[in-house]
Amino acid sequence: MAKPTCVVIGVGPGNGAAFARKFNCEGYQVALLARSQSFLDKLQTELDDAQSYICDVTKPDQISDVFSRIQGEMGPIDTLIYNAGSGHSCTIENLDIYEFESDWRINSLGCAFSSQLVATEMIKRSKGNIIIVGATASLRGGANFTSFASAKAAQRSLAQSMARYLWPKGIHVAYLIIDGPVGKNHGLDGRARDDQAFLKPSDIADSAFFLTTQAKSAWTFELDLRPHVEKW
Amino acid sequence: MAKPTCVVIGVGPGNGAAFARKFNCEGYQVALLARSQSFLDKLQTELDDAQSYICDVTKPDQISDVFSRIQGEMGPIDTLIYNAGSGHSCTIENLDIYEFESDWRINSLGCAFSSQLVATEMIKRSKGNIIIVGATASLRGGANFTSFASAKAAQRSLAQSMARYLWPKGIHVAYLIIDGPVGKNHGLDGRARDDQAFLKPSDIADSAFFLTTQAKSAWTFELDLRPHVEKW
Amino acid sequence: MAKPTCVVIGVGPGNGAAFARKFNCEGYQVALLARSQSFLDKLQTELDDAQSYICDVTKPDQISDVFSRIQGEMGPIDTLIYNAGSGHSCTIENLDIYEFESDWRINSLGCAFSSQLVATEMIKRSKGNIIIVGATASLRGGANFTSFASAKAAQRSLAQSMARYLWPKGIHVAYLIIDGPVGKNHGLDGRARDDQAFLKPSDIADSAFFLTTQAKSAWTFELDLRPHVEKW
Amino acid sequence: MAKPTCVVIGVGPGNGAAFARKFNCEGYQVALLARSQSFLDKLQTELDDAQSYICDVTKPDQISDVFSRIQGEMGPIDTLIYNAGSGHSCTIENLDIYEFESDWRINSLGCAFSSQLVATEMIKRSKGNIIIVGATASLRGGANFTSFASAKAAQRSLAQSMARYLWPKGIHVAYLIIDGPVGKNHGLDGRARDDQAFLKPSDIADSAFFLTTQAKSAWTFELDLRPHVEKW
Repeated sequence: MAKPTCVVIGVGPGNGAAFARKFNCEGYQVALLARSQSFLDKLQTELDDAQSYICDVTKPDQISDVFSRIQGEMGPIDTLIYNAGSGHSCTIENLDIYEFESDWRINSLGCAFSSQLVATEMIKRSKGNIIIVGATASLRGGANFTSFASAKAAQRSLAQSMARYLWPKGIHVAYLIIDGPVGKNHGLDGRARDDQAFLKPSDIADSAFFLTTQAKSAWTFELDLRPHVEKW
Repeated sequence: MAKPTCVVIGVGPGNGAAFARKFNCEGYQVALLARSQSFLDKLQTELDDAQSYICDVTKPDQISDVFSRIQGEMGPIDTLIYNAGSGHSCTIENLDIYEFESDWRINSLGCAFSSQLVATEMIKRSKGNIIIVGATASLRGGANFTSFASAKAAQRSLAQSMARYLWPKGIHVAYLIIDGPVGKNHGLDGRARDDQAFLKPSDIADSAFFLTTQAKSAWTFELDLRPHVEKW
Repeated sequence: MAKPTCVVIGVGPGNGAAFARKFNCEGYQVALLARSQSFLDKLQTELDDAQSYICDVTKPDQISDVFSRIQGEMGPIDTLIYNAGSGHSCTIENLDIYEFESDWRINSLGCAFSSQLVATEMIKRSKGNIIIVGATASLRGGANFTSFASAKAAQRSLAQSMARYLWPKGIHVAYLIIDGPVGKNHGLDGRARDDQAFLKPSDIADSAFFLTTQAKSAWTFELDLRPHVEKW
Repeated sequence: MAKPTCVVIGVGPGNGAAFARKFNCEGYQVALLARSQSFLDKLQTELDDAQSYICDVTKPDQISDVFSRIQGEMGPIDTLIYNAGSGHSCTIENLDIYEFESDWRINSLGCAFSSQLVATEMIKRSKGNIIIVGATASLRGGANFTSFASAKAAQRSLAQSMARYLWPKGIHVAYLIIDGPVGKNHGLDGRARDDQAFLKPSDIADSAFFLTTQAKSAWTFELDLRPHVEKW
């Protein structure tokens, strides 16, 4: 029987790689999407049944094209993880309007468009998972995160609207609030530095995977994740 | 002594006109901004010391140009009211990606850019008010408001970031949650239809004006407004 | 014509006195309630048409008795301000279960019972205002505010339930979030110390009074108030 | 090696039984607490290594006594699940002040006191889980849930304060928002009626158990759970 397919958008050495490893380890074939090739190549060789795709999520045409290729090469998509999410730190005074737009395109427009593409197919099959990776800034507009926070708030609202529409159709949309710094210095072995102040990507991935196993009678929309020593 | 100046962005016969009337009545000269001329002309003749400006808030160049003209013709801006805020109703399934972008440009990008312009001047004078008009959708992503709600959530987060940065500099940023339907059939006399299920624009404007009178020791960021019979 | 009546529960030299002064100044006769007599006597002599009543809000019998006396001596109650709200700072580890109960009785039980008494009368007249004074802790359970925050969260939920039930009957229930330290060293003249980090009670009172003037088409439930330099 | 111990407070045929079954199935010995004996006896015979204890959570003395017995008979407590949570439906107009107090005692006071007892021991061992079962009403004060919602809001704030204090000490406090109707007609076999509008207790228990398996770098405080067809 064919393996289920997981698409991870925004694959770098942190959360993106951890999502790919976890779902691959749980029996999924994995499509790895990022803007540049180098890390994808390394990760692909580490995993079973993984394919790499170059994709700039701010460009709907690229997303359409890549999703067509994925569905042709790997079959229908069972789980989409939207992990693309960079953003600029700035105040309203030094905000650059082009960065403001870019942050929104990455976090919100790309998420809307790729979710729409997979949702259309998932609706036909009455199943699927869409997991979107948010941040503290999704809930709070800090003085120094004017651009990033606004983009993340737009994304969270989008995820809510999607959940309210897609849950009754059998598609589980969920939103992760990553409320703390994520460990950055990870080798390809997935090991995080031993610092209790940082979230480990592999631990985040465990919770993301758990959400895809919840029974329909008790689905979760929003899951906050933070280190046990984090101030919040 | 020169009258203080209030700029209302998004002037139609509903809330926009009511804000203009209220601040004019309280001694402000008023700059009226909208995309089309017809209503502005009528309203301008009704008010003392009002000027009309055509402006498409999705175009930063137009905003820059108009604000330069306002400052030249009316002096420094004391109060900005950002009332531009249309949006599309849609689910994730029938969302049009160009409307999604357009909604964000009107509600969030235009708000960021025009606020930045006035904030830069207000910071120099250590005073000013920026009032942004939100909606129920600012707080809740409904299944049928995918596009509008995401744009409004982005706007609310933006307003929060602005408040956290600008309040300590003496600039009062506030956000109105208009949580109900606003009466639509208003003549130039400002009378709303006598229906208790609708917010009257003149009542909304009273609360907006009140915020500009609060003393610095006790400022409000967010104010919810709804008809007394509204379900919430 | 008889003056309208405002009852202020929890009258000390800070917010309580400021509410009493503001409403008195705006034409109300005022009933002043506190657990001890000394400050009430001083304040009463300063105001026109004020009466003092000793009342422990943790004791429903006392509340019933005092409200009967107020209605007999001053007529029906137009505005109730519930400002009783002390609380203990503690963690779960050093929480005292009797203080936990006492905090809840002052902030929540007393509020429920006194609101019920006045609401019953207000419903008959289809008008009235009930303003309840909350705090940062109403929204956030901090590690060191286990007891106070739980009591305040209970109070805020109570205020919401009351608003949803009483608004359609013409009674305006509103909740103030006092999100910062309130100036303490106020003389009877109402002057606060000149420190921009503190809320001035007279400024809080201005916003409370404003809420009672809102038109029914655009009522506010929750109003946050904080110094312009406060971190939030 | 001794089995870990899970204490379930508030054991009836719904969620309480499901928590007990799940943790028992996962290798825990289970202490079953309820106000009456009858259901406890049936459930105890069904489980391996379960003990029943009669306990009225509104009475701190009973809680102290029972926890001493549990620790004597079963050893230190690894996981506490606080599932006691009944409440009255009422408006502010027909609220009974004694029911208001009773609801608070069950949902908030009992939770604070039993959590304090176990936390004191857990702190010594730098580990443990405290999972508290909330409801839609924890977040929203509906017009007809004046008493229940206020008690649940108090409980949620308490859980937050506990989490902020106990997480850094290695104790995972989490709060479940059960946002929908729970299936009631369950036999001892744990089968829920086949109705997609209801949460199945066994599905709720799966998510509760998952929380106890999260790694310390990425803990969740609040988890919403609702049927996929629920309106929210």
